[in-house]
Amino acid sequence: MTLKKKPVTGMKDILPFEMEIRDYVIRLIKETYGTFGFSSIETPCVEHLANLNSKQGGENEKLIFKILKRGKKLKINEAKSEFDLTDEGLRYDLTVPLSRYYSNHANELPSPFKALQMGNVWRADRPQRGRFRQFMQCDLDILGEPGNLAEIELILATTTLLGKLDFKNFTIRINDRRILKAMADYSGFDEDTYDTVFIILDKMDKIGPDGVEEELKKEGFDHNSVSKYMNLFQNVTEDISGVKYIKETLGEFLEQEVVEGLTAIIETVDTLKSASFKIAFDPTLVRGMSYYTGTIFEISMDEFGGSVGGGGRYDEMIAKFTGNKVPACGFSIGFERIIMLLMEREFKIPDASVKKAYLIEKNMPSAQMTEILEKASKERESGISVQVCMMKKNKKFQKEQLNMEGYDEICEFFTDTI
Amino acid sequence: MTLKKKPVTGMKDILPFEMEIRDYVIRLIKETYGTFGFSSIETPCVEHLANLNSKQGGENEKLIFKILKRGKKLKINEAKSEFDLTDEGLRYDLTVPLSRYYSNHANELPSPFKALQMGNVWRADRPQRGRFRQFMQCDLDILGEPGNLAEIELILATTTLLGKLDFKNFTIRINDRRILKAMADYSGFDEDTYDTVFIILDKMDKIGPDGVEEELKKEGFDHNSVSKYMNLFQNVTEDISGVKYIKETLGEFLEQEVVEGLTAIIETVDTLKSASFKIAFDPTLVRGMSYYTGTIFEISMDEFGGSVGGGGRYDEMIAKFTGNKVPACGFSIGFERIIMLLMEREFKIPDASVKKAYLIEKNMPSAQMTEILEKASKERESGISVQVCMMKKNKKFQKEQLNMEGYDEICEFFTDTI
Repeated sequence: MTLKKKPVTGMKDILPFEMEIRDYVIRLIKETYGTFGFSSIETPCVEHLANLNSKQGGENEKLIFKILKRGKKLKINEAKSEFDLTDEGLRYDLTVPLSRYYSNHANELPSPFKALQMGNVWRADRPQRGRFRQFMQCDLDILGEPGNLAEIELILATTTLLGKLDFKNFTIRINDRRILKAMADYSGFDEDTYDTVFIILDKMDKIGPDGVEEELKKEGFDHNSVSKYMNLFQNVTEDISGVKYIKETLGEFLEQEVVEGLTAIIETVDTLKSASFKIAFDPTLVRGMSYYTGTIFEISMDEFGGSVGGGGRYDEMIAKFTGNKVPACGFSIGFERIIMLLMEREFKIPDASVKKAYLIEKNMPSAQMTEILEKASKERESGISVQVCMMKKNKKFQKEQLNMEGYDEICEFFTDTI
Repeated sequence: MTLKKKPVTGMKDILPFEMEIRDYVIRLIKETYGTFGFSSIETPCVEHLANLNSKQGGENEKLIFKILKRGKKLKINEAKSEFDLTDEGLRYDLTVPLSRYYSNHANELPSPFKALQMGNVWRADRPQRGRFRQFMQCDLDILGEPGNLAEIELILATTTLLGKLDFKNFTIRINDRRILKAMADYSGFDEDTYDTVFIILDKMDKIGPDGVEEELKKEGFDHNSVSKYMNLFQNVTEDISGVKYIKETLGEFLEQEVVEGLTAIIETVDTLKSASFKIAFDPTLVRGMSYYTGTIFEISMDEFGGSVGGGGRYDEMIAKFTGNKVPACGFSIGFERIIMLLMEREFKIPDASVKKAYLIEKNMPSAQMTEILEKASKERESGISVQVCMMKKNKKFQKEQLNMEGYDEICEFFTDTI
């Protein structure tokens, strides 16, 4: 009986070459965020369907891999819909499980709690290049810290990580949901149309200001409001003076503390940054998830035509899950995109261990074999990777292969040479 | 809306305290087997049901978490059985996915291929203390090496790992399927009853030789055969002379190369071992999985009343999956059991980074905050973990909590102290 050789649709086997980079990045993430006081946690990959279908997941709720009930609970004949057949599913993000985890263990956790969660998530998306149905997510969250310290630490930690991975010239774009709202309010849009306005605004980097203006008008918004709105974006700069301009223009439409907070974050990050990046105020930054309540941010990288991570403050969400209000701020890193970028630029792992190969002649007497393995043990103890293999007939080819795998030094052992 | 706080039945949230140990052990596993030339690989958690139900998984095939078909493929009204509703499932071990992986990528992989696979597996077992429905497995496999080198390297690498984790006085019990068979053959059992004989023999450590003898007789086996069989076990010792005794007694019932192989493995491991353990010939060692073809081994640890890992040679299995015969030898480490043992003895991670906490007075001016964070940055760059938090009203309690989390050094920052 031969079996299906390919992985299931949309999921992938990871070859040793890629795994080395993934393992290195995982180690670096744990280490870097560790120095910032983050603790690793883990939640099960399987979650209650009731929790997954809690409306926090947006479109992702349509993409859940659902798990069949088992034993007596499964009644196929009586089943009318999927809900009769399933009660658990694979998680589509790490935010829902984090909320459940926090509500289950708040008493056992420090406050504030700085969590690092890395793990696979599953979405039954249409498979396409570079997009898989199982992929690794990496979330950092600070629960219980209401002030800017959370934003500053999240941005500093994440940019430190990217700097260690040799990423340069990227931009942290930052905005605040409350600025988004104040700008819409000031321009005269009705509150119940904000979402529509923001969905169109979000296209700014694709269709430009003219495109946004046109779409807003096409949607039937008042032309005066649209002009007033577009004018705001035209005059704003991406540095601190941009924030100042917004503050002065919007006046009492915008709370003073929002401006102060954003200014403090931008200034502090700018002073302390260790990597080579820019932090830029971007009043067009929307971020899709509706649960954000304050600061929002995103990492833009020129090498990659999009975001490689982002996040923001979501002070209301934990309460929806647990009943208790807990200030929260999070950053989700695009782990798979970062790996893809590193692979594309043939990233070399710094301080990778020395790799040696021992080739042993066939039928080596046991005593001599022991001596060779003893030599290997000593080298391994000192941190060197030693690949011990039996010599093949086509030794030239074997050595070429070993070279390709990174075994630069090859030692040959023959029965009579020791 | 409040949601379910507990994880799904039989699965667990992992708290920071346990995660630190898990992360350390994972790092140590990758590092240690890395020096032995093993490469990390990863396979999707979701596998074709056809592959999972291939009869290689034994009883585990009854415990599969099956995933509901989606979209047009799902026809609830027409469904008669589970098979109509599902075509994928969560893997219950790492061996089936490894076989699929190897057959899919053999051309891209070195030969021999030394694979390290760590990942979660799922079994819908009845939940019980210390046994979960999602758990981490850690498998080492050498594919394409027909000789003893595979066994020796697997045992040396694994015992080196256990030594680094401070495990002492454990035993590697070793046997060979062909010795098991030869002993049954010599005693006069019919070949088609071997499985029954071995299932009873496997109970030796629980019911003792008298119990085994009694059960064999109760099963209806010839009393002469049973006596002859029991006599073999009575006279065998667990060192090399035990192997020699078996060889001399069984004569031509046992191939010479089996004895030579086992002797070479035991002697080489005994000479080269770096950790404090014993390698012992155990002719009562059976190991359940029927796919083993040669050497079999298991790690016994007194602290834990059972095996914390084991494996053996399975030269026929890959062919069943792929059609091509590939010699194979593997070791599966009881990752969860090792973590449990480390937690029980309050394992301290060696060389854990220094942990400091900074407590900052409320309403610290932004410029001064920046100075404090700059100090933190410098300490973090040097590898120290710095937890920066706002000072709470109950500072005494806050400091006690931080101490409990391992932050031994606490620095307080007040607005006027810089």
